[in-house]
Amino acid sequence: MTNINPASFIGGSTGEWKVTRMQTITGEPLLPVEYIHIKLEHISPKNALWVLRGTNNHTRYSERTEVDAMKARQEGLGRSHATHAALIPIRKNAAWWAMAQDERRKIFEEESQHIAMSMEYLPAIARRLYHSRDLGEPFDFLTWFEFAPGHEGAFNALVAKLRASREWEFVDREIDIRLIKNES
Amino acid sequence: MTNINPASFIGGSTGEWKVTRMQTITGEPLLPVEYIHIKLEHISPKNALWVLRGTNNHTRYSERTEVDAMKARQEGLGRSHATHAALIPIRKNAAWWAMAQDERRKIFEEESQHIAMSMEYLPAIARRLYHSRDLGEPFDFLTWFEFAPGHEGAFNALVAKLRASREWEFVDREIDIRLIKNES
Repeated sequence: MTNINPASFIGGSTGEWKVTRMQTITGEPLLPVEYIHIKLEHISPKNALWVLRGTNNHTRYSERTEVDAMKARQEGLGRSHATHAALIPIRKNAAWWAMAQDERRKIFEEESQHIAMSMEYLPAIARRLYHSRDLGEPFDFLTWFEFAPGHEGAFNALVAKLRASREWEFVDREIDIRLIKNES
Repeated sequence: MTNINPASFIGGSTGEWKVTRMQTITGEPLLPVEYIHIKLEHISPKNALWVLRGTNNHTRYSERTEVDAMKARQEGLGRSHATHAALIPIRKNAAWWAMAQDERRKIFEEESQHIAMSMEYLPAIARRLYHSRDLGEPFDFLTWFEFAPGHEGAFNALVAKLRASREWEFVDREIDIRLIKNES
């Protein structure tokens, strides 16, 4: 969690993840793509329909007890049985970012239970959060999830609960992209 | 505070700020430059000896009462009498970034009084913090300060107090660059 982990999600006609559905939840859509290719660096490839960049590094809201509880339960990305994935880019509105740290934390966890709720879905759902806001990207976060086909229902339930939370009142752009691993 | 404010600090032989001193406080030095030019976007100019990029946006540790107290006292950048400036790029070590949010906040304010101490120097010292870590830059923060020549002693005292704080035990690279406005 202490390293800088950059990533570029490249939407186009090739890639190791095949798009099965793109759903615009809020705000402006993204152009439809067939595949997403992930490069673990910040790049601007020429042949892509779009590219979304982010950096995974330190936690922004989690406290020590929460970090330890998550680490004890979570599993990493790249599990062979986790052939389903979701890429959900999210942007929050100006009212969210105008809040101080304590106000954002209160809505994030004490009111919306973002961490506690997500914890119930560990280790079935593996996740990684990429931060994009400092990069001047169109989204603030790129959330990435990997799970076995049998856990898709559970993942849908988690996403529905988060979208019904107070925190999500501040989300003004969200695209839900579902993928399966491209074994060819 | 809610907008995305990118900046590039370009070290070279021209610019609106003339370098009067560059002092390596901790870690690897930066190449000496005569001038620094500031562009309010993320760019990679060809003719620069170095360029440091960052983004000023939302607060990461300040709570609502602290944000309001700062806003009530602080003045903006670009005051005509504030002809002296300091650019202090800072990197923190892996131990800092491995901590959870509550652990970092505790050291930042409850133990080091970063906000309370800085508040005493408002409005004399105008400041802006740029975040660089998510960008994969060599420093985590670019701190920028502007003040009148008569307030240089006060600024030196503030910097000395911060460097003596517990928070600074986690700083593993820091360069102190002093500048005067280039009126030519």
